[in-house]
Amino acid sequence: MSLNIQTKTEHFTNPLYLESGRILEPYDIVYETYGTLNEDKSNVIVICHALTGSHHAAGVYEGENKTGWWDGLIGPNKAVDTNRYFVICTNVIGSCFGSTGPMSMQHPHHEPYRFKFPVITIKDMVKAQRILFDRLDIHRVHAIIGGSMGGMQALAFAIHYPNFASKIIAMATTHATAPWVIAFNKVAQEAILKDPDFQQGYYDPQVIKEQGLSGMAIGRMAGHISFLSHESMMQKFGREYKRNDGLYELFGKFQVESYLEYNGYNFTKWFDPLSYLYITKAINIFDISRGFDSIGEALKKVACELYLVSFKNDILFRNYEMREIAEGLESLGYKNYDYFDVESDYGHDAFLVEIDKIESYVKEALNGK
Amino acid sequence: MSLNIQTKTEHFTNPLYLESGRILEPYDIVYETYGTLNEDKSNVIVICHALTGSHHAAGVYEGENKTGWWDGLIGPNKAVDTNRYFVICTNVIGSCFGSTGPMSMQHPHHEPYRFKFPVITIKDMVKAQRILFDRLDIHRVHAIIGGSMGGMQALAFAIHYPNFASKIIAMATTHATAPWVIAFNKVAQEAILKDPDFQQGYYDPQVIKEQGLSGMAIGRMAGHISFLSHESMMQKFGREYKRNDGLYELFGKFQVESYLEYNGYNFTKWFDPLSYLYITKAINIFDISRGFDSIGEALKKVACELYLVSFKNDILFRNYEMREIAEGLESLGYKNYDYFDVESDYGHDAFLVEIDKIESYVKEALNGK
Repeated sequence: MSLNIQTKTEHFTNPLYLESGRILEPYDIVYETYGTLNEDKSNVIVICHALTGSHHAAGVYEGENKTGWWDGLIGPNKAVDTNRYFVICTNVIGSCFGSTGPMSMQHPHHEPYRFKFPVITIKDMVKAQRILFDRLDIHRVHAIIGGSMGGMQALAFAIHYPNFASKIIAMATTHATAPWVIAFNKVAQEAILKDPDFQQGYYDPQVIKEQGLSGMAIGRMAGHISFLSHESMMQKFGREYKRNDGLYELFGKFQVESYLEYNGYNFTKWFDPLSYLYITKAINIFDISRGFDSIGEALKKVACELYLVSFKNDILFRNYEMREIAEGLESLGYKNYDYFDVESDYGHDAFLVEIDKIESYVKEALNGK
Repeated sequence: MSLNIQTKTEHFTNPLYLESGRILEPYDIVYETYGTLNEDKSNVIVICHALTGSHHAAGVYEGENKTGWWDGLIGPNKAVDTNRYFVICTNVIGSCFGSTGPMSMQHPHHEPYRFKFPVITIKDMVKAQRILFDRLDIHRVHAIIGGSMGGMQALAFAIHYPNFASKIIAMATTHATAPWVIAFNKVAQEAILKDPDFQQGYYDPQVIKEQGLSGMAIGRMAGHISFLSHESMMQKFGREYKRNDGLYELFGKFQVESYLEYNGYNFTKWFDPLSYLYITKAINIFDISRGFDSIGEALKKVACELYLVSFKNDILFRNYEMREIAEGLESLGYKNYDYFDVESDYGHDAFLVEIDKIESYVKEALNGK
């Protein structure tokens, strides 16, 4: 069977009440589906994307080459089997791929919000998805899966909508964002804000797409460091030069420099700087214990099968952060969880690239042994 | 006895032949000494500084509050006991504290070198020091000690001037700079280069001192991440806010953000951007095996007591990099070395701040048991 990709946008006119007390009204959510919804709507799997991800999680659009960001995991006969499941991935609010974000038009003006856009939280992203699913008449799903910021959303579903999913798989994430992560985000935010071409938020997005935004490229380079690790960089790049004559030139390029430059500057062609600021803010303030007396009180809400997956050399979200969730559940006497620490030298990127190390685990979690 | 700080500058008119094939001519080296040289000149200890360090390693200048960067280790009755030893620390060439660097005047013009300054290597820095010591009629020293880039210099002394020091202590460093470190330096270099106030190298240093250079501040923030660790940041900052009302403000500041901002922007008041570019380049291309067939061939040169000190949670220079040197010496049958892996949660900064964990080791290395 084919993947059956469908991409749709839903428009909402009721206000979305945000955690900050502000509202978003109206708003759009773009989402993509794979596979076919069964009659009793019992085969839904929700996929949550990370910081720079989108609703395009699997397959290839017509006329393009690049597959969706989790294509290795999602598709016919893959771990998230679209022959069996109806898979939905929505673009989070605050992002820049079609859901309402800071560059969307602020109603009733015909001007983008820019810095007038409200601060969005992970809980808000999840709430908006929940409203979309209501509209689609989906009131309970088989599973929710996400990594990194997607894992934060998965955990937020587990705590704020405890009866919505039977199974939740949260990967390479945390219960509360560590200062280490906030620090990397700070470098990126500062680099964007201080770039004169950012024009204090009043940039022309078309100009940035064409000419790049070095501040965001520099911030993304810092991000790429945090996605890898000392070991994985050594394996991937070593001390090789891009050009052999570069040794005594001030900017003779090592492979790793060339990699960062390419990915940094390329990033500015496809991601919006204001979205980057807003989504990193949402990540920074993520803390599942907010609104509860403690993380234990938050974890008491969990009622699904919860699968926690960490990666040994993830230096962004450390494996012990996931273990802390497991230990929290254990100390509450909650047994319906599993914790899996994946051997990988790949750093944080592992959840995206080391599919062969997680696919059987995901399959078993979704389908039972 | 007092520390007896003396700060002096030596001027050299003979050319300094650099590893790149270029020459530096003339050049100055500023250095500082503590303690008193004994009659047979057998009590000299050389201290080598790191990327942003200077010759001011210990004590306090008149009218100032801030001590030298390794004051905890160096002084009367300290591990490097200035009652007993005559301690010399020189500012490396390429730096900005008095030794010749990119903002020095290029002879015979009365204009700074800027980008006309030649690429400097760690070996060049060490060679220049060796020439200074010759001028001071010091032809052999009791010990050389350095951490980070100072440790690279210490290793370069061990290999290129094997009979110059009886004992060498290299801390928190590597035999060849890993791509991880090059990547952090890349973020900083790119941020400096792309800052319009850098003016492609034609900035007015006074203006930068007064107004700051956000590109260098951003790069320094990335540096500060690499000097700490996930764990040490959690201990140091947690998820505390600088202001309690910052949660739903886009730029409400976490303590860690405030720390990075302060240190980043403050840095631009006391360090020169071109020096930062040149010294990070020197670090990037550091590889003790350059010019040899292998690291083993390089290590065959070692003839002193070599002390290798790593820090368990140093994420910039990993402890196994120092262990690789130890293993290299071991496999050559060279027994006159010691390897000490220090327990510390402090990350790379440990060699500067965890003095109590290294002082007895340093003392014993210098004085024998």
